[in-house]
Amino acid sequence: MTEHTPVTVLGLGPMGTALASAFVRAGHRTTVWNRTAGKAAPLVEKGAVAPGSAADAVAASPLTVVCVIDYDAVRAIVEPVAESLRGKTLVNLTADTPDRARELAAWAAERGIDYIDGAIMTPTVTIGGPDAVFLYSGPEQVYESNRSTLASLGGTGAHVGTDPGRAAAYDVALLDTFWTAMSGVVHALALAEAEGIAGAEIAERMQGILALAGQLTPELASDVDRGSYPGDDSTIVSNAAGMEHIIHAARSRDIDPSVLEAAKAVADRAIKDGHGQDGFSRLADTLRRTDT
Amino acid sequence: MTEHTPVTVLGLGPMGTALASAFVRAGHRTTVWNRTAGKAAPLVEKGAVAPGSAADAVAASPLTVVCVIDYDAVRAIVEPVAESLRGKTLVNLTADTPDRARELAAWAAERGIDYIDGAIMTPTVTIGGPDAVFLYSGPEQVYESNRSTLASLGGTGAHVGTDPGRAAAYDVALLDTFWTAMSGVVHALALAEAEGIAGAEIAERMQGILALAGQLTPELASDVDRGSYPGDDSTIVSNAAGMEHIIHAARSRDIDPSVLEAAKAVADRAIKDGHGQDGFSRLADTLRRTDT
Repeated sequence: MTEHTPVTVLGLGPMGTALASAFVRAGHRTTVWNRTAGKAAPLVEKGAVAPGSAADAVAASPLTVVCVIDYDAVRAIVEPVAESLRGKTLVNLTADTPDRARELAAWAAERGIDYIDGAIMTPTVTIGGPDAVFLYSGPEQVYESNRSTLASLGGTGAHVGTDPGRAAAYDVALLDTFWTAMSGVVHALALAEAEGIAGAEIAERMQGILALAGQLTPELASDVDRGSYPGDDSTIVSNAAGMEHIIHAARSRDIDPSVLEAAKAVADRAIKDGHGQDGFSRLADTLRRTDT
Repeated sequence: MTEHTPVTVLGLGPMGTALASAFVRAGHRTTVWNRTAGKAAPLVEKGAVAPGSAADAVAASPLTVVCVIDYDAVRAIVEPVAESLRGKTLVNLTADTPDRARELAAWAAERGIDYIDGAIMTPTVTIGGPDAVFLYSGPEQVYESNRSTLASLGGTGAHVGTDPGRAAAYDVALLDTFWTAMSGVVHALALAEAEGIAGAEIAERMQGILALAGQLTPELASDVDRGSYPGDDSTIVSNAAGMEHIIHAARSRDIDPSVLEAAKAVADRAIKDGHGQDGFSRLADTLRRTDT
């Protein structure tokens, strides 16, 4: 494919609009469509084409990118136009779970549609610029054929595997890290404020402590890969005692301690299972509910 | 005080031993004591003095540093030697809650003991080196008088306020951030592994996503300071939908989703309270249980 492969974008929410804009700016003949009307106008002004139906939109390009709220919304849009997609490529950049990505890949395969599942790892504002990060999974050859077109979305794109669920799996694991950490940030800010410490006073140190968690991550990951959880530096017993101090401090200030209580319950389960002298990485094993 | 002020260290667990070693190396006449015998021998070999009683240990120096498992252990050690501490300085580097630090400060004040509460923000291995970080709180003049001696512990020390609970408040807020983030890391590693992604494959990206959470922290902190929680970039409703995907993905792999479920319950409460279009920083407010 050339740099100017025509592209269709289905779904014109903030992210879909950013994707379509990037294609337009890169010089692709860009066809756009949204379920509810009115979203296409600013893109048409920039040079996009907006036919009246999804089928016409899909028919206009060899590559269709869809980015909507979830996989149910994807199916509601693509199922009626499956015939128009036959023999073409569908790149789904909608965020959802690995299983749903695999289901959609199977659906597409049955209908003769080449399917790539992707995950957008960076915010809307990064799209088209150098900081955008995309992960893709699905058949390598389909990815390679569309790689240069997808490069118009900016930043870096990586093919993380042929299993179509793999990009979504990266996505959920990374967002798992992100949202759990963010929950810790807002909780710590609430606790600090209750203790008379302004956010501005402690934000930089919080940033430092998140960086420390990041520095420890490769070691935790290596423990998990090896299935070995040494407690040389600190043990789950001492980690749980530290968590208990925080829970106590939160309770004494009437700050909801439920997130850290849930985290400590996992540590307590590991201790009960006889792993109290292991390191924190052991909890990745404890979290597997093999007994249910 | 000179660089060679005599110092007493009570408590010779891994951290207490590291503190005592740093004082010995810096040239202080260092007196050590531990509740159970046998811990002092390696320090005595390096030049420390180990009398038979805590009272004798405290009497040997104008400054006593205590670092044990928790504040109950501190009190069990210092209460019997309160008379020996009168007119001297007690620096408590034991980790516990702000309230307990304040209680101990009040106890010390009643007995004519100058009291500084401190928090050690870095691991044992950093003590005495450039990377150690200490926070201190309590009367400024007491801190200033002992500052050069405490500098022998290495790294950087900061006086964060006269309220004796303030160092502990920083400590619990930062550890809150840390342990919640670390819980996210082990959970994400468990989820990735269940999806066939090795820790080594995803660790660097996890580090990147923790750095992103760190980058967002000053903005969240500023929102909390202003009591204004704009949802321009993303809303709690969309954040909660993202969390639900992760919870769904974890459940489908039999990974315990309880930590993120607790986090999402806070987001759901904010939505129920009519704040669904606010930004994530709003949750610092939602976490305050003013209605209980």
